[in-house]
Amino acid sequence: MRTQVAIVGGGPAGLMLGRLLELRGIESVVIERRDREYVQQRVRAGVLEQATMDLMDEVGLGARMHAEGLVHGGVELRFDGEGHRIALSDLTGGRAITIYGQQEVVKDLIEARVASDLPLYFEVSDVSVDPAAPSVRFTHEGVDHVLECDVIAGCDGFHGVCRPTIADVLTVYEREYPFGWLGILAECEPSSDELIYAHHERGFALASMRSPTVTRMYLQCEPDEDVANWSDQAIWNELDRRFGMSVNRGDVFEKGVTPMRSFVVEPMQHERLYLAGDAAHIVPPTGAKGLNTAMADVYLLAHGIDAFYGGDDSRLAAYSSRALERVWRVQHFSWWMTSMLHRFAGDDDFQLKLQQSQLRYTVSSAAQATALAENYVGMPFIAE
Amino acid sequence: MRTQVAIVGGGPAGLMLGRLLELRGIESVVIERRDREYVQQRVRAGVLEQATMDLMDEVGLGARMHAEGLVHGGVELRFDGEGHRIALSDLTGGRAITIYGQQEVVKDLIEARVASDLPLYFEVSDVSVDPAAPSVRFTHEGVDHVLECDVIAGCDGFHGVCRPTIADVLTVYEREYPFGWLGILAECEPSSDELIYAHHERGFALASMRSPTVTRMYLQCEPDEDVANWSDQAIWNELDRRFGMSVNRGDVFEKGVTPMRSFVVEPMQHERLYLAGDAAHIVPPTGAKGLNTAMADVYLLAHGIDAFYGGDDSRLAAYSSRALERVWRVQHFSWWMTSMLHRFAGDDDFQLKLQQSQLRYTVSSAAQATALAENYVGMPFIAE
Repeated sequence: MRTQVAIVGGGPAGLMLGRLLELRGIESVVIERRDREYVQQRVRAGVLEQATMDLMDEVGLGARMHAEGLVHGGVELRFDGEGHRIALSDLTGGRAITIYGQQEVVKDLIEARVASDLPLYFEVSDVSVDPAAPSVRFTHEGVDHVLECDVIAGCDGFHGVCRPTIADVLTVYEREYPFGWLGILAECEPSSDELIYAHHERGFALASMRSPTVTRMYLQCEPDEDVANWSDQAIWNELDRRFGMSVNRGDVFEKGVTPMRSFVVEPMQHERLYLAGDAAHIVPPTGAKGLNTAMADVYLLAHGIDAFYGGDDSRLAAYSSRALERVWRVQHFSWWMTSMLHRFAGDDDFQLKLQQSQLRYTVSSAAQATALAENYVGMPFIAE
Repeated sequence: MRTQVAIVGGGPAGLMLGRLLELRGIESVVIERRDREYVQQRVRAGVLEQATMDLMDEVGLGARMHAEGLVHGGVELRFDGEGHRIALSDLTGGRAITIYGQQEVVKDLIEARVASDLPLYFEVSDVSVDPAAPSVRFTHEGVDHVLECDVIAGCDGFHGVCRPTIADVLTVYEREYPFGWLGILAECEPSSDELIYAHHERGFALASMRSPTVTRMYLQCEPDEDVANWSDQAIWNELDRRFGMSVNRGDVFEKGVTPMRSFVVEPMQHERLYLAGDAAHIVPPTGAKGLNTAMADVYLLAHGIDAFYGGDDSRLAAYSSRALERVWRVQHFSWWMTSMLHRFAGDDDFQLKLQQSQLRYTVSSAAQATALAENYVGMPFIAE
């Protein structure tokens, strides 16, 4: 088997890369360990940056996002019992975010790839990559394959095989946060039209949504919190306490604990293997940056591959260093939001006062509010 | 002895308060532990915020500052071997800073008070305050005095007697930084027209000045660094290394180590004793905020005292909470600048990457540069 670009991983990063290559007339094969149903149902990120929205339009797949997604022009920071709106759109020349689940993006991308009749293998196993050859081996429906290619895109997530394959040449930067997020999905109207990020002495809380009838809520908790210890009643009560208001309640149909981690490897490339998305970096979810950063990676990578087939290898050579500039911006922003909003075990009252002053400043200074807003709606995707 | 306002401490805060009261027709007595020569020579802060400059003009003492001070419309952030200018004035509608030593401000204030023939006692001893009476006891030229008054202003610095007198009712917020600044004064032309804040893997460095012929330089060092271990040659070499350039050299005529501390007490008032300046709070020198925050305190306090004599006690009652809002803004900014620019023992490479990303962002985003600039030139002084 031969192709131009072997894409390991059929999540949003791999599928979007395949779509971008398709539109440039570049062949690719996408392989994915899970089945189609699983990746289309997997609940992950839910906030699209402006540039991700624009990218969905650019690849001709924005229709359902525009019909079903909820566009937000602001977010609320809540502390000392009061809410303060950060007017994202007013502060960034009209940029916005859209609430549209990652699994919806994945559904749109899979549907398009299937409609184009392009190779997409689910439920592959025994995947291994050879960055030098370059080639990818895998088993599909009992048959072993060797996929020869020019470029391998490692889009197989944090637990994938691509990054470990080149571990010897990578430097790891990592931070574990001493807390997690206890998250719920519930059948009820969201308590606010926009997201609410709440700072409270008992810990952070986030009010989000999936749709006009499905509420998404998070509470800062222990990193190893056992959800079994939290009745629905206890969760709602704690949410009321941290938001300082009565939130809408409904049937809780999902409950789980998300760990909080920052992780980056450098470089994001070795020989002909290029890492993108969670395969190369993880952010804590506070800034809603995971999916969007993966999209920024593959946007840059697609332009590099396109130039490569046009006879210019310099842009692929620069992929890692260029991608990492934006990755570190996102890492810093996610760390900053996390540090401003969470209570850390061992923090003294001086630190609490700094947080409160930072929050007051952020909602009262146009400059600082703009700095939050421009990061939150997302820095532009770079093409080279 | 009786007066309206007893001012404990003849540093810049106490003397400026006396001047503001004089211009409102309110009597005061200023007492100071040191002699006149000492306070006029004491080298401390050297950067005046815009609002401090404006205040010197407002009290009719701006002439020498305008003649001798160096007005700066920008500062440089230097990292990865490159300098980046933050255009303070362009970003803040024309606000600026002025290099004019604290001792010069003190000289101007003392001269004015002496010219007005108002009570100012140097070399007092055995000072004690009674916030409830209210009254101040002290010894001057061998004679014991009891100074009865309506209001006591505690402007006697971090090591003064006023704060300890009311320690029982105060909450202390404190942070010791695990490093100090090794500072020198040298006879040579400054290496740059504006201040340079340098981030380097070996530690922070600051290039400042006292005048067109006197250079002020600082190096991050151990908190208990022994200056005897540093030859002039070693200091100049280390400065060259951290700035990544050859700095101008000259005779070093002062050398010392400054500890780095954040400290705040709440409230800043008890009964009829009102704390102002270093008596109530200390910042690390990174943001050049110590003197300026003291000026902001006494500006607010003078307006409160003026209202008090007009029959309205509400502004004095609100003094502490109003002053503390600005104090915490300054504390947060000073902590932020310190954290961005210094290497902390035990910091991992992830933290270094965050610092570098923060620095790159600060010099490339107009919003973030403006946030730095508006804090650096100083938030407006508040009158009520």
